Amino acid sequence: MKKNKHLYASLLSAAIILAINGPLNAATEKHPGGEVSGSYEGAPTTIDPGQAKNMITSEGPLMTVEEFEVGKKIYFERCAGCHGVLRKGATGKPLTTDITRPKGTDFLKVFINFGSPAGMPNWGSSGELTEKEVDIMARYLQHEPPVPPEWGLAEMKNTWKVQVPPEKRPTKKMNNYNISNIFSVTLRDSGQIALLDGDTYKIINIVNTGYAVHITRPSASGRYLFVIGRDAKINMIDLWMETPDSVAEIKVGLEARSVETSKFKGYEDKYAIAGSYWPPQYVIMDASTLEPVKIASTRGMTHDTQEYHPEPRVAAIVASHKHPEFIVNIKETGKILLVNYEDIDNLSVTTISASRFLHDGGWDKTHRYFLTAANKSNKVAVIDSKDRELEALVDVKEIPHPGRGANFDHPKYGPVWATSALGNADVTLIGTDPENHKQNAWKAVQILQGQGGGSLFIKTHPKSKNLYVDTPLNPAEPISQSVAVFDIQNLEKGYKVLPIAEWAALGKGPKRVVQPEFNKEGTEVWFSVWSGKEEESALVVVDDKTLKLKKVIKDKRLITPTGKFNVYNTQNDIY
Amino acid sequence: MKKNKHLYASLLSAAIILAINGPLNAATEKHPGGEVSGSYEGAPTTIDPGQAKNMITSEGPLMTVEEFEVGKKIYFERCAGCHGVLRKGATGKPLTTDITRPKGTDFLKVFINFGSPAGMPNWGSSGELTEKEVDIMARYLQHEPPVPPEWGLAEMKNTWKVQVPPEKRPTKKMNNYNISNIFSVTLRDSGQIALLDGDTYKIINIVNTGYAVHITRPSASGRYLFVIGRDAKINMIDLWMETPDSVAEIKVGLEARSVETSKFKGYEDKYAIAGSYWPPQYVIMDASTLEPVKIASTRGMTHDTQEYHPEPRVAAIVASHKHPEFIVNIKETGKILLVNYEDIDNLSVTTISASRFLHDGGWDKTHRYFLTAANKSNKVAVIDSKDRELEALVDVKEIPHPGRGANFDHPKYGPVWATSALGNADVTLIGTDPENHKQNAWKAVQILQGQGGGSLFIKTHPKSKNLYVDTPLNPAEPISQSVAVFDIQNLEKGYKVLPIAEWAALGKGPKRVVQPEFNKEGTEVWFSVWSGKEEESALVVVDDKTLKLKKVIKDKRLITPTGKFNVYNTQNDIY
Repeated sequence: MKKNKHLYASLLSAAIILAINGPLNAATEKHPGGEVSGSYEGAPTTIDPGQAKNMITSEGPLMTVEEFEVGKKIYFERCAGCHGVLRKGATGKPLTTDITRPKGTDFLKVFINFGSPAGMPNWGSSGELTEKEVDIMARYLQHEPPVPPEWGLAEMKNTWKVQVPPEKRPTKKMNNYNISNIFSVTLRDSGQIALLDGDTYKIINIVNTGYAVHITRPSASGRYLFVIGRDAKINMIDLWMETPDSVAEIKVGLEARSVETSKFKGYEDKYAIAGSYWPPQYVIMDASTLEPVKIASTRGMTHDTQEYHPEPRVAAIVASHKHPEFIVNIKETGKILLVNYEDIDNLSVTTISASRFLHDGGWDKTHRYFLTAANKSNKVAVIDSKDRELEALVDVKEIPHPGRGANFDHPKYGPVWATSALGNADVTLIGTDPENHKQNAWKAVQILQGQGGGSLFIKTHPKSKNLYVDTPLNPAEPISQSVAVFDIQNLEKGYKVLPIAEWAALGKGPKRVVQPEFNKEGTEVWFSVWSGKEEESALVVVDDKTLKLKKVIKDKRLITPTGKFNVYNTQNDIY
Repeated sequence: MKKNKHLYASLLSAAIILAINGPLNAATEKHPGGEVSGSYEGAPTTIDPGQAKNMITSEGPLMTVEEFEVGKKIYFERCAGCHGVLRKGATGKPLTTDITRPKGTDFLKVFINFGSPAGMPNWGSSGELTEKEVDIMARYLQHEPPVPPEWGLAEMKNTWKVQVPPEKRPTKKMNNYNISNIFSVTLRDSGQIALLDGDTYKIINIVNTGYAVHITRPSASGRYLFVIGRDAKINMIDLWMETPDSVAEIKVGLEARSVETSKFKGYEDKYAIAGSYWPPQYVIMDASTLEPVKIASTRGMTHDTQEYHPEPRVAAIVASHKHPEFIVNIKETGKILLVNYEDIDNLSVTTISASRFLHDGGWDKTHRYFLTAANKSNKVAVIDSKDRELEALVDVKEIPHPGRGANFDHPKYGPVWATSALGNADVTLIGTDPENHKQNAWKAVQILQGQGGGSLFIKTHPKSKNLYVDTPLNPAEPISQSVAVFDIQNLEKGYKVLPIAEWAALGKGPKRVVQPEFNKEGTEVWFSVWSGKEEESALVVVDDKTLKLKKVIKDKRLITPTGKFNVYNTQNDIY
């Protein structure tokens, strides 16, 4: 980690020196409308005043309407997730104009180009944004954010399609797939998911979905998959069809992350819920058709200072096994909602004060306690789903990002749940057994050091002795292209590095290695090697026992694979 | 009623003719900034272009900053209650600029001057607004409404004062008043309440409060009174003090109407709750100090179309006797919240879909069913507080305004709850006894005709055989200055008229007769005779048995008396 910090510092210093002395600020001039960022080498030329009629003329630097539209699109796709649509900040810093304007175009460009060690990706130097796009974003951020429209029942119903109504669906499984070992793989930039046969490594189908599908969640029965794009489009896939495919879809907002289905006894496959980033709200749907039934806004007071927040986004949602409830994380207000679905018409909601900014999380191994990261407050909140209350707030280091986390039996501390982090190399293990290991419960009992910051996911399996930690957002290629493996029985020994991207033997590209996912049996772990849209990507399957390469899955249809969801493990909350 | 409709129509026609032909639109001219309303007789002269640097220059007609400030203040005090701060409409029509600008200044002036039969008061012709103020309002409404600031925990705490801390308060009653027969009387325009001794008719104290106190609610024990001004300032008055006075105060928002205290067994005098119009939210407070504990926003989706509403105001709140809950009416979304106060830190709220726009209401005589008017949907919603659900939606005529309503045993239909109306002469009786009069339950079993529209309150008492109906907002003076009394045993006989204002023997002034209120014993009924701030007002006490004048209470401190709340009757929900 120290080495990385040094690397970051060097990069950052270079960037700042460039900003002050170098070609980056070769020409800036003052216009009445604000600062105009001039023509450094390769950047767009100074804006022609003849274009004035097409110019955005707020208090920010001049930009054309076309540039503003480009900025809006990029901001939505790349920035809003961390910084918020209204730019009030969450995982990322606030970017309101009172902050961005004094910083100015050149300063902002450096950050967008090179990122920061605290977790800001290096959008420019990674090649994901062009120089021109970086320049546009630096100026765009100095204009007031456009407020997106509301999205109520009418808008949802307008986008709701039942491609195959329930009565026309199969009454028994019509294929020979071992559907509980299917992997649903997000194809990030193509707006699709790939269904892969976990037994044969073959692609079963490519399903068109929303943009950059965030998660796949199976119904309680395991028959249906619900996938949600960042653009808030949900598809419902029937695994009983001869070729599993989408049977219903709906767009529940403009930006979203979470979908879940009811799992309490008697409510299996009855309701689905989706949480939106914009508008800040959640919707409960009929789980057989995706028909929207009840929408509830999350706008309201922060849990601590009790001041109004206009954009409390819905982060992770899990279905309780102990009550007919969804557990809904509200990011900006730091509240956890227990949404009872017994009587949808008269919705009953219990609000638990937790910590800002709630993000993702998962169950302990007993499925009683929900552990969820509060980014920026550096806490993990523990909800007791049985007693319906906050069990604990555990202190952790910067920006934990558990995904759903990883559960295993620690040789010394008993059952633990683990999370890695975006901002540092920490892998934090939290005791989860208040009955037999009371002294360790809800404490960070051990902190392992992984390869570095920029980790998104961590994974193990009840049958595995290994703990895998990815680092796809680390700026150093050797780290982002490999994965660390800890031996759970010998955690002090440190980690082995598996050169996953190298094993994939691909051409050029960022080749980030992301999201370990086990097969149903817990004998294999799958990784995505995630390159650019125009570049070749792959899935790499590792034998969990030997840690040797077992299979590289390549197919021109596997465009930018990221998250993978094994049906059985996801359905049964095994992680 | 027919006669009144005719009267309204004549007034309105005259007004419209004036608007088209008369002096009202003598001079209008077009300016780049919009229409400038010119100089009709007695009105402000055409604005001097030399004042331009001080001019409001939005899309609306020109107005100076000072005029805009006057408009803002008058709108807040007089208009926002019905039309909403954001002018999206509720009891009153929407007044957004897409509606007001095409109507124009002159048309708007006519309405503001003369009101409308649907319930708009005649602000100009009643003398409550000057000609200049009417002109300002007509222009103000064509500008975008300024959005008021938020009001969170910090703002509340800044305004929170404990004048006498609990430990310094008396441990027993320190005065000889029969405190259960005290009347708390709103002195509307002086920002005070008067505490009157119901036994001696003497003023006990005048307490400075918020502006235009909307209601007084005693604590469950009857020791404390909670009063809330339209400006959202709450005062808590201790009736055990030698001279009962305020012991705590807080401003919970910018505009509010409702306050209530916990009444469920074991929670007496424990919590207070206040609902705000702006910001749209409610706050639960410690009932011994008014310390704000939990604030919850009501912004969210409408109950029917499920579209986002930015200003769902909190109307009536009542404390359940069957559960530790507050029942909270949300006006614009048409939702009724059951706010459970067992665990304030983890607030549990059940939302019942009812009807727009929920306003006020009261209990049936058993205190199990809460009947509440949904203005503009012309419904009365019935909540079963025991089973925690919507029991019925009863169709009624335009704009019911029950206050808390009136309960009595109808000779034919059994127990009924009654409401009068703003928009017509109807007094609607609804059956409330599903056990012994099932066929009548939750039906409008009879509609009586009162003196006319513009009624605010209706009242009877378990010991009375009379039903009193006021009509203070009726444009005809003989009607607004008197009250109708029905004999409950002979409702078909029609009503007697009591000339309350005449009995008060006051000088000039509107002398509106408003809000009948019984004494504790149910032997007397008190009325306010409400004149202007500079004019003499009075309270008139009528003997309920003989319907004869018993007492006129006059005092120069009784400035603009309106609502009166008898401690015992209010504490015990007797109405």
